[in-house]
Amino acid sequence: MIRVGVVGGTGYTGVELLRLLLRHPGVTVSLITSRGEAGRRLDNLFPSLLGACDLAFTDPAEADYSACDMVFFATPHNVAMREVPALIEHGIRVVDLSADFRLRDVGVWERWYGETHAAPELCAEAVYGLPEVNRDAIRTARLVACPGCYPTAVQLGFLPLLEAGLVHPNQLVASCGSGVSGAGRQAKLDSLLTEAGESIAAYGVAGHRHLPEMEQGLGTMADQPVQLTFVPHLLPMSRGIHATLFAKINADSADLQSLYENRYAGEPFVSVMAPGKHPATRDVRGANVCQLSVAQPQGRDTVVVMSVIDNLVKGAAGQAVQCMNILMGCSETTALDGIALAP
Amino acid sequence: MIRVGVVGGTGYTGVELLRLLLRHPGVTVSLITSRGEAGRRLDNLFPSLLGACDLAFTDPAEADYSACDMVFFATPHNVAMREVPALIEHGIRVVDLSADFRLRDVGVWERWYGETHAAPELCAEAVYGLPEVNRDAIRTARLVACPGCYPTAVQLGFLPLLEAGLVHPNQLVASCGSGVSGAGRQAKLDSLLTEAGESIAAYGVAGHRHLPEMEQGLGTMADQPVQLTFVPHLLPMSRGIHATLFAKINADSADLQSLYENRYAGEPFVSVMAPGKHPATRDVRGANVCQLSVAQPQGRDTVVVMSVIDNLVKGAAGQAVQCMNILMGCSETTALDGIALAP
Amino acid sequence: MIRVGVVGGTGYTGVELLRLLLRHPGVTVSLITSRGEAGRRLDNLFPSLLGACDLAFTDPAEADYSACDMVFFATPHNVAMREVPALIEHGIRVVDLSADFRLRDVGVWERWYGETHAAPELCAEAVYGLPEVNRDAIRTARLVACPGCYPTAVQLGFLPLLEAGLVHPNQLVASCGSGVSGAGRQAKLDSLLTEAGESIAAYGVAGHRHLPEMEQGLGTMADQPVQLTFVPHLLPMSRGIHATLFAKINADSADLQSLYENRYAGEPFVSVMAPGKHPATRDVRGANVCQLSVAQPQGRDTVVVMSVIDNLVKGAAGQAVQCMNILMGCSETTALDGIALAP
Amino acid sequence: MIRVGVVGGTGYTGVELLRLLLRHPGVTVSLITSRGEAGRRLDNLFPSLLGACDLAFTDPAEADYSACDMVFFATPHNVAMREVPALIEHGIRVVDLSADFRLRDVGVWERWYGETHAAPELCAEAVYGLPEVNRDAIRTARLVACPGCYPTAVQLGFLPLLEAGLVHPNQLVASCGSGVSGAGRQAKLDSLLTEAGESIAAYGVAGHRHLPEMEQGLGTMADQPVQLTFVPHLLPMSRGIHATLFAKINADSADLQSLYENRYAGEPFVSVMAPGKHPATRDVRGANVCQLSVAQPQGRDTVVVMSVIDNLVKGAAGQAVQCMNILMGCSETTALDGIALAP
Repeated sequence: MIRVGVVGGTGYTGVELLRLLLRHPGVTVSLITSRGEAGRRLDNLFPSLLGACDLAFTDPAEADYSACDMVFFATPHNVAMREVPALIEHGIRVVDLSADFRLRDVGVWERWYGETHAAPELCAEAVYGLPEVNRDAIRTARLVACPGCYPTAVQLGFLPLLEAGLVHPNQLVASCGSGVSGAGRQAKLDSLLTEAGESIAAYGVAGHRHLPEMEQGLGTMADQPVQLTFVPHLLPMSRGIHATLFAKINADSADLQSLYENRYAGEPFVSVMAPGKHPATRDVRGANVCQLSVAQPQGRDTVVVMSVIDNLVKGAAGQAVQCMNILMGCSETTALDGIALAP
Repeated sequence: MIRVGVVGGTGYTGVELLRLLLRHPGVTVSLITSRGEAGRRLDNLFPSLLGACDLAFTDPAEADYSACDMVFFATPHNVAMREVPALIEHGIRVVDLSADFRLRDVGVWERWYGETHAAPELCAEAVYGLPEVNRDAIRTARLVACPGCYPTAVQLGFLPLLEAGLVHPNQLVASCGSGVSGAGRQAKLDSLLTEAGESIAAYGVAGHRHLPEMEQGLGTMADQPVQLTFVPHLLPMSRGIHATLFAKINADSADLQSLYENRYAGEPFVSVMAPGKHPATRDVRGANVCQLSVAQPQGRDTVVVMSVIDNLVKGAAGQAVQCMNILMGCSETTALDGIALAP
Repeated sequence: MIRVGVVGGTGYTGVELLRLLLRHPGVTVSLITSRGEAGRRLDNLFPSLLGACDLAFTDPAEADYSACDMVFFATPHNVAMREVPALIEHGIRVVDLSADFRLRDVGVWERWYGETHAAPELCAEAVYGLPEVNRDAIRTARLVACPGCYPTAVQLGFLPLLEAGLVHPNQLVASCGSGVSGAGRQAKLDSLLTEAGESIAAYGVAGHRHLPEMEQGLGTMADQPVQLTFVPHLLPMSRGIHATLFAKINADSADLQSLYENRYAGEPFVSVMAPGKHPATRDVRGANVCQLSVAQPQGRDTVVVMSVIDNLVKGAAGQAVQCMNILMGCSETTALDGIALAP
Repeated sequence: MIRVGVVGGTGYTGVELLRLLLRHPGVTVSLITSRGEAGRRLDNLFPSLLGACDLAFTDPAEADYSACDMVFFATPHNVAMREVPALIEHGIRVVDLSADFRLRDVGVWERWYGETHAAPELCAEAVYGLPEVNRDAIRTARLVACPGCYPTAVQLGFLPLLEAGLVHPNQLVASCGSGVSGAGRQAKLDSLLTEAGESIAAYGVAGHRHLPEMEQGLGTMADQPVQLTFVPHLLPMSRGIHATLFAKINADSADLQSLYENRYAGEPFVSVMAPGKHPATRDVRGANVCQLSVAQPQGRDTVVVMSVIDNLVKGAAGQAVQCMNILMGCSETTALDGIALAP
């Protein structure tokens, strides 16, 4: 049994991690921390766990990780970077769902997050937890930095095109939408049903923190710098990310459908849809799956890729468990084969 | 391996059955029929099954059930009653999710459904598939008639009160609401997002077919006839049933909280919430769970019970699998321990 | 031109008042206050007002009401009772949308709100602003206390039955649901789309502050004390209240349809639906309308009434403008004849 | 009084037209037709009209338009082109909300709609009903072809850039989303709450009939052919269109904010938001308004424009009434100054 700790379990990513880990046959959740809810039973805060979980939250100040083989951070940014170094020193492996270790370039991180990084020496070491790109490196990592939700959908969508060098790397466009759970379990006016329901609006057009993360990953795929215009939208739904990607083809002809099917043929969690089909977020709700489709409207030189995930699963907790499975030597799909909840 | 057939797999109950059965370690789905979609792959109709299912629909006219140990009917009423007798004769056990065998009194059935019953001799034999009441009888049944969605929520809610004889049986009120999936996967104006979304309305106040089913079951619990006023409402959501139940107490004092906790202490799929908590359908989404709470507002003589289920799971497919587990000798919770998808 | 002031304009009731008042041909909005948003333009906070309104919020400490003929309070409870006496003294008429003056019995108010009333002498004088009951008294009132949203739907629903003495007054049941805007424009976890969306739950079953208000009003109609069991539910939508009412008939036979049609024949804002129809909240969205229907299921002795309103219009701002129209001598329907926004 | 006829009044566009026309002080609705609902009262089909309308549907075969000064077509395509010529011959002016006369090039129309045009001679004469572009021509038109919903949002968004020649005309991208009401009041599986709710998917990526309409209009603005990649998405909401537009700037520097503000300074129904603000569809719900904002992320050479409308108002019925106002000599804003319903 892998003994697992979870730091920060009161958000949507935390409860989603528990939903998966509590049904993982090779895992015992030993410890889950929360400053604000210390002592409270989890099923009191999250009645969805009634009958499934006897744990209570531990005060982080009193948390003893020595009984853990590995630890997840499901915290806002700025927590993991302070606590991870000590854990790693004690030989505990870490999967961080926050943004602290996603950018290799510390300077870029500090510019976008507006503060000094507390563990700059780990930024280069941390393995970016996108298994479809970094599976081997994850296997031996001490620290895995899980991708953000938008970056997962966008990178999996552009990946075959960029690896094959088929599109102009400096004219990428990603028009994306996320369900409100992407904003976290926080009392914010913009996330009220009365504000976010029955409405759509863009946000962060001037600059979103996922932009440098995506440009870093896409640049690696393209083996050269890329320029991405990224517009996220808040959608009137709870879960799901839809990425609509646009790129300009630089080749005369290309069988894009085969390109995508071949690239993802062996991937357990990426499905390429039949030509003419459009993926819908409802079909990945609750599942650790990315569904993709690719098109070339009117036979012109702009390729359109559609990519959907559940932001809390393949975009967060599911991908973190996938990384844990790889890291700890479990079968990669363990506890992740749940079928999407549709409708 | 239990070899399972599914008659009628193109509705929401059908795809939900598959979601559960495809992950059941003791089951093989051998056959799934559809008249309209014969030959089509299931994952083409339901992209949520991409990567999880290679089956295609079989034309019912060509279906060979001899390779099935048991068969589910996920059809509208009026299908099972024509086909079940032959299956039973061949020793195939049947779990019927439709309304054909829910009423013991054929005359009542024929009055509410407006047609002649095709297998009246089986109405008395069929076991009503509410395990919390009929577990033992289900174990040896040849034919299980799964309860409707409203009847599941309402009966589990009233059960402790009626068994204990604590309320007047002729003044029961059930004000219930259902998500739109209860109306099935059918192109109906009333089920459009534009009609059902952002709105609530009652329907069927003059008479709903679940009324005689509920009065039959509640009467058995009370050991005397009951009168129920039942008002269903269509709610602006996809899944979930909420039943708000009212009854007049006939005792001077009663510890209702303990009554409920004791009655359901051993039940794997019924949770009684702590006093003062109100169950929410989001906390049972996708799970085979009923969450209940009981209150006595202002200490007056009206007791209020709140009962929530996912109409497609504990109200249909999940309960059917639960009955199958009991019937076929599996552990009752197999494939049914998935945790609710919240948010 | 009636010069109007609005105290507290940053909530949903405030912006809804403005939506109506800015298009009222006999009204000028002179002043609108907010402590938190003083100096900010309204259309910056509420972009729905772009192009329709040049006002900015005034700090309440600097508000000069002397230029106002009347003032609306769109504040939480506990504000109006401190400020109204001075306004009334200056001859300014007041329509209070908050709960401060809804209960005639100061003791009851203090018990339910847990504090000392600051203007007890006005509680008896304040006219309860339900025009269908109190039209004449409103005409000459100095202070109108607008009903709560649930009380409007519930009282209009029970009114004909109680006035006619046709039901037992001590066994009334109201199972109601409200859109999330009823919880106000406040950053609360329970109002998040991720919590309130795609879900329904009851709340406040042990006791809701609208209960004494309803029992007061219903008792007046019945001319005797009543007992009401009231269960409110939070619905996954933004606007709308649906009240499902149950009562036990004490007469042998009654033409309930005619009773309702006759009682509301002259009312501009109450519609009784044809027999067999069920009102839906979508059909009153944005309109100052209550739609009702009445039924007697199975011909038994329980009558069921369904009543729908838009909680922000007939349940708040619309009703307040209706009271203002009566009070200030305008035609009662001025600025209130907008047709509901369906779908 | 302008006597108005409406052909085809049972869809969402029809009821929305009525919502506006019934409150237009200069209009009498004389006639409204429906084949399927002939004889039925409108308020029976649409309870939102209860108390506001005594009309019943007329069978189109029996419709006498001689009492009409003008006629709206709120029909699917393929109806107006058969009936308009006779009306025009009788001097009745026509505002067509369908697609029959939107394309000047009959050949293009026939290719996209797959049938022969029944009134090709009127295609060139029909005035495209986008007042912000064609106000003067509308004034004297015999036949106005109202723009589609997506084309309204997209064209108003690109207009200032193309008129000013600031972007490359062959690399335009429009990533758009529409509420489900855009699919009409028709019983379709894809429009069910259970399918469209809590989900987003693209559709028609291979080719959507609004594409040639947009390229025609944008080309006129640019005074040269344009190439647009257009991806529409179905959004989990009832009303609203959001267009996110991308174009490559061909100038060294441009004050885009001023460009937009100046272009729309005199327009009653277009608002340019302050820099940094993002328009939301909730803020135009029910209003005949387009709200725009423009940005240049990271100071790079891709400009992003966001444009929102209510698809049933500025995208259909409201724009049609606006055209009628211009055409018939009313003030352009009459009956169209209703403030958006937010929340």
